Amino acid sequence: MNISFEDARRLIVEILTAHSVAPDHAAIVADHLVDAAAAGHAFAGLPRVLALVDNLKQRPAAGPIEIVRKSANSVVIDGKGTNGYVTSLIGVEEGAKIARESGFCVVGIRDTWFSGRLAYYVERAARKGLVVMHTATTAARVAPHGGRDQIFGTNPVAFAFPCDPDPLVIDFGTGMVTWGEALLRQKLGRPLEPGSALDADGHPTQDAGKALDGAFLPWGGHRDSGIALVIQVLGILAGGRPVVDDVAGSGFFFMMFDPELLMPLPEFKAKVGELVAHIEASQPVPGGPKVRVPGRASIARRAAAAARGGIEVDEAIYQTLIAIRDEGRKRGHAPGAARKEGE
Amino acid sequence: MNISFEDARRLIVEILTAHSVAPDHAAIVADHLVDAAAAGHAFAGLPRVLALVDNLKQRPAAGPIEIVRKSANSVVIDGKGTNGYVTSLIGVEEGAKIARESGFCVVGIRDTWFSGRLAYYVERAARKGLVVMHTATTAARVAPHGGRDQIFGTNPVAFAFPCDPDPLVIDFGTGMVTWGEALLRQKLGRPLEPGSALDADGHPTQDAGKALDGAFLPWGGHRDSGIALVIQVLGILAGGRPVVDDVAGSGFFFMMFDPELLMPLPEFKAKVGELVAHIEASQPVPGGPKVRVPGRASIARRAAAAARGGIEVDEAIYQTLIAIRDEGRKRGHAPGAARKEGE
Repeated sequence: MNISFEDARRLIVEILTAHSVAPDHAAIVADHLVDAAAAGHAFAGLPRVLALVDNLKQRPAAGPIEIVRKSANSVVIDGKGTNGYVTSLIGVEEGAKIARESGFCVVGIRDTWFSGRLAYYVERAARKGLVVMHTATTAARVAPHGGRDQIFGTNPVAFAFPCDPDPLVIDFGTGMVTWGEALLRQKLGRPLEPGSALDADGHPTQDAGKALDGAFLPWGGHRDSGIALVIQVLGILAGGRPVVDDVAGSGFFFMMFDPELLMPLPEFKAKVGELVAHIEASQPVPGGPKVRVPGRASIARRAAAAARGGIEVDEAIYQTLIAIRDEGRKRGHAPGAARKEGE
Repeated sequence: MNISFEDARRLIVEILTAHSVAPDHAAIVADHLVDAAAAGHAFAGLPRVLALVDNLKQRPAAGPIEIVRKSANSVVIDGKGTNGYVTSLIGVEEGAKIARESGFCVVGIRDTWFSGRLAYYVERAARKGLVVMHTATTAARVAPHGGRDQIFGTNPVAFAFPCDPDPLVIDFGTGMVTWGEALLRQKLGRPLEPGSALDADGHPTQDAGKALDGAFLPWGGHRDSGIALVIQVLGILAGGRPVVDDVAGSGFFFMMFDPELLMPLPEFKAKVGELVAHIEASQPVPGGPKVRVPGRASIARRAAAAARGGIEVDEAIYQTLIAIRDEGRKRGHAPGAARKEGE
């Protein structure tokens, strides 16, 4: 079914406020999830509310977010258990404000969990004329290359660069599979791709359930195991745990700077545009589709959704969401009476 | 054969000064190559002098390096055709000086070529207590994922983090094969690994010669094609060309910051050490060797070379190097009379 952006946002806000999320925080999450759905990342869209609600029920109430430290070039945020959609948005906004003034900012965010698509945050900073790198550690699920223990998270990373008409956004995870995907495949009884995971004894497996008891493999062998390690270390610097045994030990890191430190912004944008045009005009492999520039398909899908005026939602998911909202309301957290997380 | 560090350095300086490199620049290159040899990267060691001399003969004389711009958070260097071993060393030293003072520095280096192991530079900055990311674009050889045209360089990237007793250093290239490796395999008549390259018609090939006429593939499919793109864009920001059709259009980029912006250095080092220990103590896959931490083997080999007091050099390479030195001297560039590159 197709529902309007406004209806989708309202439903998400209603569900989250019925589960003790403050209205302003719920609105931040809703904007993110609706954008993800519009950009064609169905799994990162409305169904994500189910996982969020599960977590909200299990975790201790979140405290008020604290900006522990702020300097001319840095922000340190203690999320006090608040979800990452909110802490990351605050992080990227605060960081961008500082970087626009001083030329540079690093941001560290701790005691937080789940932040959705990293692309969402870096795109915002790039639209303000900044070069940005963003990493997040997640619960340990991935073995280092050659190993079988859960040491790294599925650790995503994202970069964005100013470019017209839209920023160039590159993001990816560093595990062969994500936790959510493994859970889904386990539920559907579908195997993982070969080479994705090890079972608890360290032997290759395509069984998602066994992989969840064992370890996922890093994407791309030893090289991407190296990237996963870089992200793990940046997560430490952001205040995360060396090995994230609980998702609340995640560390989210941003690094942003003004490209004018090295080159006038219009020149930089024009040259990035030249490279993008080169890639788009380049020859595909024989019989293959047009060569794609990362992030461009998401932007095109978002524009198409805007033209349609709404997003596609699976009917069963929609009904589940309505039921979750009503169940939350019955338990006494009416929207008007929503506590601020952790208050 | 084993030769002492001092003899190896002297021979390199003699060869380079006999080919119009200034003695101070030759010494910078010699230090790098001898360190690479000591760290066990034979191909990045003394044999690299052959490629350097080839380039010195073919390129116009280099001009004096110019620091085009310097601010509290940036350095822009125009190499004026000087080799990258020299420009990158100046770049990392100048950048680290600035970052130690202001907390952050980005460095862009243009009109330069070949800089050896990126790990060499980032390790230096990390020993000064800085977190550092370094990228370099190289001549276009790699097709973007799904494509067959040479758009990206083999674009290496390196990160280093302060840690005791040695920094944690992670570096890798983003192509399935490097240009030097393809040339070597072509010469030896050895095939490339499957999935490494395309021929001029865009069909998979293991023939190194055909790959040199076609394109190399990016490591790890679309995700690492994304990293290659990130490096290409950072190369643009550093002053490199959007597509590097000649190696002189390379762009070298450094980004360094003081981790104390987010966390006290001793705490950061201790936690990185904890993660490293976790990885080293983790279980390998059944029957596999000990799980390795990136960069640690290089550091161990360097220590072993120091204990031995010298490096291993192939006898044939050594004789070739002597001949190149003597031939250079005969052509009238005696060491004492060496022009500064480009003067």
